[in-house]
Amino acid sequence: MGSPFQIGLLQLALDGTPEENLEKALQGVRDAAARGARLICLPELYRSPYFCQTEDPRFFDLAETAEGPSAQAFSALAAELGVVLVVPIFERRAPGLYHNSALILDADGRLAGLYRKMHIPDDPGYYEKFYFTPGDREAFAFETAVGPVGVLICWDQWFPEAARLSALQGACVVVIPTAIGWHPREKEPLGERQLDAWVTVQRGHAVANGVYLAAVNRVGRERPVPHGEGIEFWGHSFVVGPQGEMLCRAGAGAEEILLATVDPAHLEAVRRNWPFLRDRRIDAYAGLLARFLDGPRGRP
Amino acid sequence: MGSPFQIGLLQLALDGTPEENLEKALQGVRDAAARGARLICLPELYRSPYFCQTEDPRFFDLAETAEGPSAQAFSALAAELGVVLVVPIFERRAPGLYHNSALILDADGRLAGLYRKMHIPDDPGYYEKFYFTPGDREAFAFETAVGPVGVLICWDQWFPEAARLSALQGACVVVIPTAIGWHPREKEPLGERQLDAWVTVQRGHAVANGVYLAAVNRVGRERPVPHGEGIEFWGHSFVVGPQGEMLCRAGAGAEEILLATVDPAHLEAVRRNWPFLRDRRIDAYAGLLARFLDGPRGRP
Repeated sequence: MGSPFQIGLLQLALDGTPEENLEKALQGVRDAAARGARLICLPELYRSPYFCQTEDPRFFDLAETAEGPSAQAFSALAAELGVVLVVPIFERRAPGLYHNSALILDADGRLAGLYRKMHIPDDPGYYEKFYFTPGDREAFAFETAVGPVGVLICWDQWFPEAARLSALQGACVVVIPTAIGWHPREKEPLGERQLDAWVTVQRGHAVANGVYLAAVNRVGRERPVPHGEGIEFWGHSFVVGPQGEMLCRAGAGAEEILLATVDPAHLEAVRRNWPFLRDRRIDAYAGLLARFLDGPRGRP
Repeated sequence: MGSPFQIGLLQLALDGTPEENLEKALQGVRDAAARGARLICLPELYRSPYFCQTEDPRFFDLAETAEGPSAQAFSALAAELGVVLVVPIFERRAPGLYHNSALILDADGRLAGLYRKMHIPDDPGYYEKFYFTPGDREAFAFETAVGPVGVLICWDQWFPEAARLSALQGACVVVIPTAIGWHPREKEPLGERQLDAWVTVQRGHAVANGVYLAAVNRVGRERPVPHGEGIEFWGHSFVVGPQGEMLCRAGAGAEEILLATVDPAHLEAVRRNWPFLRDRRIDAYAGLLARFLDGPRGRP
């Protein structure tokens, strides 16, 4: 069983240039590490504004390889500070083949893993299917110096299957870099319910799997489309424990560093009392591999 | 697409004799139907106190067949009132073979389906593995006069797989008869967190699947074991909508009839905006059929 450690989330405004955003994120990692964090996570696609509000081939120029500027800068910093980092990147894998990914950098600076977002949204203002090929790796958890760390990205956070696979691969904490916000005209009538659903479904994953879960979002309104309303990224980054209990939570509008303690011994105590992994009916779950279960239902 | 209808939950104290509990439940169905409910649900094992607080072979005498007294009485009442009923029973299937089941009775009194609890707990005070063989039917949703109704029972409610399978089989609302409460000595230090986790994980299922979800629990302290502390069943039956929004919720201590409207058109609107079923990665979910995914993790 691992030792307790601090997780640090960097809730940031990321509307600057790639160079400015990189610099801000590097400084945030230094600040979080100085406050004791040993696992530090950035928001999704941290290096640019959220360009998926429109479909424009020029934005592919923002992509970098898994050995690119982000990897180099954060690998060096991870080794210098002795911290584990989750660094989301817009990954260029080959010409015409891009992913929404995250580097998991170990405390010695080496690459502990590469996660590629598995579930890709396509909704007004979130045109991700244009940019990102769905991930083709089935790694949802990664061995690091602080223990096994689960990584999902944004839209993945709505899928219980993804959280479960991360837990089954041994994740003690599932980290979820995110870029989610309100359409300005929806905020008043629907915003509270949307935010509450977002928090609830993720707290539900924590309960169902007996894991810590940390969601890290950006803040600020971004309007990359001329005459568009843009998106107001809603912040509210949070960390919950393995019973879904809120350990810390950021506000909606400001940059913040959030810190919380992940304690593997507490996780194990919770799972002994709520032994869901003991009782899964794996003999009866084949239907989960189907798109939908059409046909007559349930007659005795 | 089906028409809106009212669901009615009977939150009841069930510490009487089987005859008394049956009579109370029949009257509750009449009352709920008189108030407009067309789908009415009783708590788990409604016909007796929650006997699983101890392992005692004499309690098998409480079991009945799927054509027994409960089936006969409620089938007649369903037909008389023209309502759909979910009636949990302690099912005797064969000598030495028992299930924790629910009859789904259609509005014409015919059996629309039989659900057998798939996930069986075994924890202090909830010794269900002694009494109940895990369900061997893979029907999680049932066609009825009000549309497809999902049914899970109690411990099933903690498993995202069960809720997902119910939604994939077409459930518009997932009904979950329950018997859950506080150990008296845990109530003060842990009770609030336990109750919140129970609500949260189920609200999470509603969000993740875009379904209505209705949990119906019993109330009252039951002490079937001499010198035992018993369990204080915590009530708090509730109905949530497909974004996890609370539609109605009962208190902790009293019998109540809860009513809420299930609107398939609203469900479809929600799913169009949050199209999780569109984006499930069924090509990558094979790991869900494993007990645990041991072995090296995530190296790139």
